[in-house]
Amino acid sequence: MIRAGIVGGTGYTGVELLRILALHPQVEVAAVTSRSDAGMKVAELYPSLRGAIDLAFTLPDASALAECDVVFFATPNGTAMLMARELFEKGVKVIDLSADFRLRDAKEWARWYGMEHASPELLAEAVYGLPEINRGRIKNARLLANPGCYPTSVQLGLLPLLEKNVVDVSSLIADVKSGVSGAGRKAELNILMSECGESFKAYSASGHRHLPEITQGLNAVSKQPVNLTFVPHLTPMIRGIHATLYVRLNQYDGDLHTLQALYEQRFADEQFVDVLPLKSHPDTRNVKGSNRCQIALHQPQGGRMIVVLSVIDNLVKGAAGQAVQNMNLMFGFPEEQGLKILALYP
Amino acid sequence: MIRAGIVGGTGYTGVELLRILALHPQVEVAAVTSRSDAGMKVAELYPSLRGAIDLAFTLPDASALAECDVVFFATPNGTAMLMARELFEKGVKVIDLSADFRLRDAKEWARWYGMEHASPELLAEAVYGLPEINRGRIKNARLLANPGCYPTSVQLGLLPLLEKNVVDVSSLIADVKSGVSGAGRKAELNILMSECGESFKAYSASGHRHLPEITQGLNAVSKQPVNLTFVPHLTPMIRGIHATLYVRLNQYDGDLHTLQALYEQRFADEQFVDVLPLKSHPDTRNVKGSNRCQIALHQPQGGRMIVVLSVIDNLVKGAAGQAVQNMNLMFGFPEEQGLKILALYP
Amino acid sequence: MIRAGIVGGTGYTGVELLRILALHPQVEVAAVTSRSDAGMKVAELYPSLRGAIDLAFTLPDASALAECDVVFFATPNGTAMLMARELFEKGVKVIDLSADFRLRDAKEWARWYGMEHASPELLAEAVYGLPEINRGRIKNARLLANPGCYPTSVQLGLLPLLEKNVVDVSSLIADVKSGVSGAGRKAELNILMSECGESFKAYSASGHRHLPEITQGLNAVSKQPVNLTFVPHLTPMIRGIHATLYVRLNQYDGDLHTLQALYEQRFADEQFVDVLPLKSHPDTRNVKGSNRCQIALHQPQGGRMIVVLSVIDNLVKGAAGQAVQNMNLMFGFPEEQGLKILALYP
Amino acid sequence: MIRAGIVGGTGYTGVELLRILALHPQVEVAAVTSRSDAGMKVAELYPSLRGAIDLAFTLPDASALAECDVVFFATPNGTAMLMARELFEKGVKVIDLSADFRLRDAKEWARWYGMEHASPELLAEAVYGLPEINRGRIKNARLLANPGCYPTSVQLGLLPLLEKNVVDVSSLIADVKSGVSGAGRKAELNILMSECGESFKAYSASGHRHLPEITQGLNAVSKQPVNLTFVPHLTPMIRGIHATLYVRLNQYDGDLHTLQALYEQRFADEQFVDVLPLKSHPDTRNVKGSNRCQIALHQPQGGRMIVVLSVIDNLVKGAAGQAVQNMNLMFGFPEEQGLKILALYP
Repeated sequence: MIRAGIVGGTGYTGVELLRILALHPQVEVAAVTSRSDAGMKVAELYPSLRGAIDLAFTLPDASALAECDVVFFATPNGTAMLMARELFEKGVKVIDLSADFRLRDAKEWARWYGMEHASPELLAEAVYGLPEINRGRIKNARLLANPGCYPTSVQLGLLPLLEKNVVDVSSLIADVKSGVSGAGRKAELNILMSECGESFKAYSASGHRHLPEITQGLNAVSKQPVNLTFVPHLTPMIRGIHATLYVRLNQYDGDLHTLQALYEQRFADEQFVDVLPLKSHPDTRNVKGSNRCQIALHQPQGGRMIVVLSVIDNLVKGAAGQAVQNMNLMFGFPEEQGLKILALYP
Repeated sequence: MIRAGIVGGTGYTGVELLRILALHPQVEVAAVTSRSDAGMKVAELYPSLRGAIDLAFTLPDASALAECDVVFFATPNGTAMLMARELFEKGVKVIDLSADFRLRDAKEWARWYGMEHASPELLAEAVYGLPEINRGRIKNARLLANPGCYPTSVQLGLLPLLEKNVVDVSSLIADVKSGVSGAGRKAELNILMSECGESFKAYSASGHRHLPEITQGLNAVSKQPVNLTFVPHLTPMIRGIHATLYVRLNQYDGDLHTLQALYEQRFADEQFVDVLPLKSHPDTRNVKGSNRCQIALHQPQGGRMIVVLSVIDNLVKGAAGQAVQNMNLMFGFPEEQGLKILALYP
Repeated sequence: MIRAGIVGGTGYTGVELLRILALHPQVEVAAVTSRSDAGMKVAELYPSLRGAIDLAFTLPDASALAECDVVFFATPNGTAMLMARELFEKGVKVIDLSADFRLRDAKEWARWYGMEHASPELLAEAVYGLPEINRGRIKNARLLANPGCYPTSVQLGLLPLLEKNVVDVSSLIADVKSGVSGAGRKAELNILMSECGESFKAYSASGHRHLPEITQGLNAVSKQPVNLTFVPHLTPMIRGIHATLYVRLNQYDGDLHTLQALYEQRFADEQFVDVLPLKSHPDTRNVKGSNRCQIALHQPQGGRMIVVLSVIDNLVKGAAGQAVQNMNLMFGFPEEQGLKILALYP
Repeated sequence: MIRAGIVGGTGYTGVELLRILALHPQVEVAAVTSRSDAGMKVAELYPSLRGAIDLAFTLPDASALAECDVVFFATPNGTAMLMARELFEKGVKVIDLSADFRLRDAKEWARWYGMEHASPELLAEAVYGLPEINRGRIKNARLLANPGCYPTSVQLGLLPLLEKNVVDVSSLIADVKSGVSGAGRKAELNILMSECGESFKAYSASGHRHLPEITQGLNAVSKQPVNLTFVPHLTPMIRGIHATLYVRLNQYDGDLHTLQALYEQRFADEQFVDVLPLKSHPDTRNVKGSNRCQIALHQPQGGRMIVVLSVIDNLVKGAAGQAVQNMNLMFGFPEEQGLKILALYP
């Protein structure tokens, strides 16, 4: 039994961590902080947790958090980089669900996030927490950068192709669609139901912050610089990400079955990546609430273009679930512990 | 470990049973039948169950089902009443999620369901499976009639008031709103997304089949005939029922706190009924995917009218979850086993 | 051709006024004000109006507005009561879509709206703009209080019964469901899509501000004090109100056809109230975008309780459409001018 | 005043035609046919049309339809090709909203639609009704093939680039998202709200019937064979199409402003194509219910890839609205007559 703290417990990734950790057999949630709601019972803000989480929100306090074995940051970007070092130095393992430690280059980070990085010296220490690529290093991580939701769906979808170097990395395209919970629990006009319900739009089409994170990951896997066009879209649903990935084969070969076999083999031992039968169309509903990524392959008109479809729940495999998967690895628990959750269908 | 069979596994209550039973530590799902999809893998039809349910649908066959310890009927009305007897006589416990055994009076049943009852002699044997009222009898039941979704939300909401005989039972009103999954998985025009999305309507306002079931239950609790006006509504969401119940106090007393205490006391030992603080507004999202009923009380303008708000997930506490709760009772398992599921919020 | 100004043009009632007035053959929109967005082109904020409205938002300025023939206030409560007098005194006709002039009693207003009324002397001058009741006075109005959305749906639904004094006015019940656009265009957490999508809840069940407005109207029609229990609900859709009204007949008579005839006769000459055939279930989608109220009657189990179902689009007949209907009356235009808009189905 | 008939009036394109034609000043709707609902009042099936359309559905009958000046086919594929000739020969102008006359090659048609074409000799006669490309021929058309919804959004989005031959036509990508009304009003499981609400998926990723129609159009415009990868997606909303188009510039030039000017100039005289300011993100809600296409351009990271965003309402500019636009051209009416409809926002 380990003690876990959550900093920034009032957002959607925070409450999703609570949903999962409350039933995790090896974890006691010891502290949940919130500057805005300190003093309020967690279950008063989130009646879905009544009877499961009896804590009240507290002000973030490093000495109290230092009594935890692991601290999750479910905070806006720019917070974890200020608080992580103290915890880190006290031997507390840190899992950051924000973007603060995802990029290895502090200047690149500053350029995309519009502020200087407060702890650039920790970036080398941080381990990027995509278990399907990085499992070995994650097991020994003390500071874990949990991947973004878009980057998880895109990297898992492209991984086998880039590892095998069978596609043209100079013109990768990721057309990705997200439910609105990805925008967080913030009082903003553009995510009102009256604004984004019954409507669909792209956003940040000229450049989104997740682009450098995805590119960094794909570069590492393909061992060469890739060029990715990434366009995110806001979809009128709450949970779910659907990545439609367009890649050109280096040479025409027409054998989609070979690629299918490549994917099935690459993910054969991965509990949370599920390669569907050839030409399936994964549906975000089938992973809603679960930590699973479902993937399918298509080759329209038998040509050189391969279309990879990849779906996750942005709050689970795209955030809190993956964070718990990483925690399990870091503490030597079974990787799937607390994550045997089937999708809520319909 | 018991062996469970599901008859009619392709509807929403069937797949929801599978979601819950797949993770139940004392149950092995041994058979799932479907006339329309026999031969197909369950997980092919429902990719959310890949890796969790490895069975294929089979044709319903009484001798195969007779090897189960319990058989759930998740069938349209009129099927269980034909098949239950044979299983029942062979000692298999039967839990019927359809309406076939809910009414004690075969003539009343025939009037509302438009066909003769095929096994009227079993009606006396059937136990109505609302644990909060009937726990003792459920433990010994061999044929269990699992309550309807509307009846569950309305009966739980009114129970303490009727037991204590403090309201005028001659003019009860239940204005109830259901998500569209309550209409089942049927190819019908009126439940297309283009028809029922972004719209709201009442239906069966002149008389709905759940009325006699609710009335039968309320009569029993209040030990006198009640008069209920029940109007169901179709709401543009998938899961959830919200009952708004209007009752007049027998005498004005103004003390809503007394009623609140009555509710809290009545449900103090009920794990799946949660009385919210006074004047709360329960939200269906807070029970989505969970087996919980959340209830709150209001007294507008301090008058004689009491408004009870009661929410459930129609597929869980209103169907499959309650069925598993009943199964647990019938087999002596802990009542909450397999049902420690927190609502999926947001 | 008259000149119209809109104060507070950035909310949903403002933009809906623009949608309607832009195509009204006798109206030129001369000014649209907004404190927050002054200087911005209207069509930049609302791309749906590109090519139809070429104005920019301006700061509210009484002398500029005084050059209009009519000024609509689509402002939050508390604004019109400060600005209306000056316009009123300069002979500009004022149509207020907020609640400022709806109640005749300034103390009652202060109690429900939490501030003193700034222009109590204007309350006697204000005409309540429900044309189906008040057409004569509206034609001569100089200050018009446009009804609330809930009050419109409830009053139209109950009008014939109360005028004929055939129901028990001591226990009226209005269970009303609204789409989220009724909450306005405000950056608030509770109306985020992630919060209110796929969920249903009551709110203000212990007392909502529209209660005194409805009661005032019903009292006037029934010529006696009525007692109304009014519970509003938030529905996961954008537009639409569905009122389910429960009334007890004074004496049992069982003749629903008589009541149907009463409704059909009462509204025979009303272009915007449509009595559906007996036992219909009006659907909010069928009035979406239109200025119509559709009504249907039920008598469950032939008893004394009558259920009236009444639907409107909260932004049209419940706000901007009714305001234009009132404007037409005040300026002697055909009542339906600019309002021949069919509902957008599906 | 012309007389119009609609064959197949019970689907979504049929009822949308009725919504538009009912208010068209030069059209009298003279007949609406339906095999399934003959004898029923149109307004009984579609209460949104009460008071606007007083007809009953009739059985399709060529001699009755021959008394119309124009007949719209809003039928499933395979019907118009059987009935059009007789009307055509009697001098009735035919506007077919199905796919029957969209492809010029009968063999290609047979391959994608799975049946022989019944009137291949009429294909040469048919005019493809995309006014922005084909206005001259449309004015003289006697048999008009109204474009599909996907093809309209994609062709309008790519038109200026292909006309000017500035992009690599060997690797065009169209990632297109549609609301569920595009699937029609059919009792099918996959478009139930419980199935497609709160979920997102691609479909027909290996090949969709609209591909040859789009390719045929793009080939004609670019005067060379293009290669298009087209992946359609089902989006949890009712109306709207959003095309995200990825094209590579033939040579890097970096001047997005030049392309913007090209688009603005190309569509300057088009009333129903609206080029938004550079780097806008068109939102389907802003064209909901209107006949408009809104387009915006992006150049991610200033590279060679251009991203074009194009939105329409699939039932209006993607079907019924465009059909009326074509009718106006064919009869010499002002092109925008009956189509001055602003989008319904929110």
